[in-house]
Amino acid sequence: MAYATITRRYRFCAAHRLHTDQLSEEENWVAFGKCNNPNGHGHNYVVYVTVRGDIDPVTHRGIDVQRLDAVVDRLVVRRFDHRDLNLDPEFAERTTTGENLVLLIWDLLVKHIPEGRLEKVGVIETRDNYFEYAGEAAGAPVGGKG
Amino acid sequence: MAYATITRRYRFCAAHRLHTDQLSEEENWVAFGKCNNPNGHGHNYVVYVTVRGDIDPVTHRGIDVQRLDAVVDRLVVRRFDHRDLNLDPEFAERTTTGENLVLLIWDLLVKHIPEGRLEKVGVIETRDNYFEYAGEAAGAPVGGKG
Amino acid sequence: MAYATITRRYRFCAAHRLHTDQLSEEENWVAFGKCNNPNGHGHNYVVYVTVRGDIDPVTHRGIDVQRLDAVVDRLVVRRFDHRDLNLDPEFAERTTTGENLVLLIWDLLVKHIPEGRLEKVGVIETRDNYFEYAGEAAGAPVGGKG
Amino acid sequence: MAYATITRRYRFCAAHRLHTDQLSEEENWVAFGKCNNPNGHGHNYVVYVTVRGDIDPVTHRGIDVQRLDAVVDRLVVRRFDHRDLNLDPEFAERTTTGENLVLLIWDLLVKHIPEGRLEKVGVIETRDNYFEYAGEAAGAPVGGKG
Amino acid sequence: MAYATITRRYRFCAAHRLHTDQLSEEENWVAFGKCNNPNGHGHNYVVYVTVRGDIDPVTHRGIDVQRLDAVVDRLVVRRFDHRDLNLDPEFAERTTTGENLVLLIWDLLVKHIPEGRLEKVGVIETRDNYFEYAGEAAGAPVGGKG
Amino acid sequence: MAYATITRRYRFCAAHRLHTDQLSEEENWVAFGKCNNPNGHGHNYVVYVTVRGDIDPVTHRGIDVQRLDAVVDRLVVRRFDHRDLNLDPEFAERTTTGENLVLLIWDLLVKHIPEGRLEKVGVIETRDNYFEYAGEAAGAPVGGKG
Repeated sequence: MAYATITRRYRFCAAHRLHTDQLSEEENWVAFGKCNNPNGHGHNYVVYVTVRGDIDPVTHRGIDVQRLDAVVDRLVVRRFDHRDLNLDPEFAERTTTGENLVLLIWDLLVKHIPEGRLEKVGVIETRDNYFEYAGEAAGAPVGGKG
Repeated sequence: MAYATITRRYRFCAAHRLHTDQLSEEENWVAFGKCNNPNGHGHNYVVYVTVRGDIDPVTHRGIDVQRLDAVVDRLVVRRFDHRDLNLDPEFAERTTTGENLVLLIWDLLVKHIPEGRLEKVGVIETRDNYFEYAGEAAGAPVGGKG
Repeated sequence: MAYATITRRYRFCAAHRLHTDQLSEEENWVAFGKCNNPNGHGHNYVVYVTVRGDIDPVTHRGIDVQRLDAVVDRLVVRRFDHRDLNLDPEFAERTTTGENLVLLIWDLLVKHIPEGRLEKVGVIETRDNYFEYAGEAAGAPVGGKG
Repeated sequence: MAYATITRRYRFCAAHRLHTDQLSEEENWVAFGKCNNPNGHGHNYVVYVTVRGDIDPVTHRGIDVQRLDAVVDRLVVRRFDHRDLNLDPEFAERTTTGENLVLLIWDLLVKHIPEGRLEKVGVIETRDNYFEYAGEAAGAPVGGKG
Repeated sequence: MAYATITRRYRFCAAHRLHTDQLSEEENWVAFGKCNNPNGHGHNYVVYVTVRGDIDPVTHRGIDVQRLDAVVDRLVVRRFDHRDLNLDPEFAERTTTGENLVLLIWDLLVKHIPEGRLEKVGVIETRDNYFEYAGEAAGAPVGGKG
Repeated sequence: MAYATITRRYRFCAAHRLHTDQLSEEENWVAFGKCNNPNGHGHNYVVYVTVRGDIDPVTHRGIDVQRLDAVVDRLVVRRFDHRDLNLDPEFAERTTTGENLVLLIWDLLVKHIPEGRLEKVGVIETRDNYFEYAGEAAGAPVGGKG
């Protein structure tokens, strides 16, 4: 059956600070540099959600975009937009690195994609800094690209 | 043998409307929302064509870009640029969704790539909306990248 | 009193065709080239609206952005988004050039800006094509930059 | 004497919250919407600094870019990057709107431009939101664009 | 009479090196830094040409874009594209700074604009570096923004 | 173990010319077109480096970005920035095509990535021209991603 992927772009603006109680103040500084500055800073985060869907024989769409948007808006955008990420319960014990953020967004979405299959989540933190996660299959240590 | 991929960006401006005779007027509206508006609308479409080629031992190019450009221009750009997609014969029975468009462009190109192998076709419809197809191999339900 | 300008970006997707009944078919083709193709094409239009406002002594904003957005959405975006520009009553006798479009958007907005003063309207039609109008004062034949 | 302007782009990431003690909690919410959310959010701010300089007869540069960069880095970027804007002394009594920010950056720079004359300061807060200030001359209530 | 401005984007790729025989080797280094590296480097230059035209009562265009493109292509793009700027006769005695380049492009175009009036020339050298010239009127030492 | 990829963007400005002594002057012209122009031209190259790292249980980062930046800066950016690529020893016998460049950057980095595993290198030469290499595993003639 024919398939295609669609990637939708979402955005949210949030504050954060890289810091963990498991390290001393100085170790935090060594690990995170200025991202550890007290009082935090913030970003215009961009989130790419890639979903693969079989082409519907009538509409010829892979997925219903409006339903996908509603899910991402409810589970991701409204949760983080105009917030301080460090105060999110999921980040109570974890630092708000881009890696953690992209994994969390994957976890929040993977079982709630209304149709098709979540392929990839990408997060732009700054114009030179992009994080991506493509699931466990892509994480196999041998073979394939991912 | 060494290889690399090259991705070339092409563009065309076209009108379209999402609509299928297989659905009632109301069902069309539910399925496609404002994209179903009568009289249509349009986009500045961007097309990414990714080709993988073995590095030529003399020129050290993977493919001849000028030949690729000529093929894409003839088979894709001139066909769709400054046209109404809904009037294209290929869309007589199919809706002009981004999914269908990316699949059609793949089909138009895959056997006519002058050198190397078509890896991927991507289509930007709006800044938040991107479609991609990477061939049947990538479509296998198990393993692979996704 | 302190002032600043704010520029907001809006978008709409629309079909159009450059054509005028005042010219013969051939003259239309000479004047407009492929933009005259029958059945039309379309664009992802981007509209920049620049408003100058005095800084409010309490909020320290120049204008209320939400009110501006509501006006532009009602008078411009909803009017043109997912439409065929050639069917708009204002374009019954006028071609849908970028120049006409930017002037029309200026006229639609200039008396309805909720606060401050409309300074400039810009329209991106394609990535290499940008139109701008800054009002009659800027149109004086002598002196000044614009 | 020949002149030209140069515009340099700078960036900083910062947290902020729109809030003023002069308004009640509810009035703050009406005025600033989600930008008033407690605990704040943040942005990847982009700052454009435009300086006009006479062309030096030997180097044919309008200004010494390295000196300009050093000034902006010292007075603006290091001050705001990876900080919470609301904790800056200048924002103790003023809200951290884009308007206030662009005016403050103008004030911080205007007397310290090493060569030439500050023409314009621009601040991008989000991709759809841009603030600009071009000095008092441009602020005259009558006449011309600028 | 109604008017509008149109800005067209053009591009060329060129090599250059900042160096003048009027300075010693060391002075060149102080003045230009790594841009003075022997053997040169290069850029993807982007050129913005802004022309103001009265709206034609029949076509409703401000200018004939195809004629403008032909002029800029002949006088600017073909002259510089895939060349070493330092070997251009105009740069025999002048350094290839962005300032000189924007002034030279203005001079090459100002008397050959087929219709309307040249308003502004802009040159992007790198993503953080933009040069602009808007003519002598804008260069008056007193008054107004430009 | 959880993993994610990070992609960092780097840039350098360089001159180059496509030319090989293994071809006659005319053959060079046929193969490379205007990129073969004597005296060369140049580009603002953008380099994307994608590294996959296991999430550190304390910092929750996949890799130490500062260490990666230091390596890429030393081995790639400083080597090519503000240089003529054709004078690089690695290009003494090889043409400076985008394909060769992306392979060379891969080779320069693959054994020196401080943590994690190099996944992919991408090079933007012009806005319509992008090269990518993802290692030998991705190069297998059968299966894989494409």
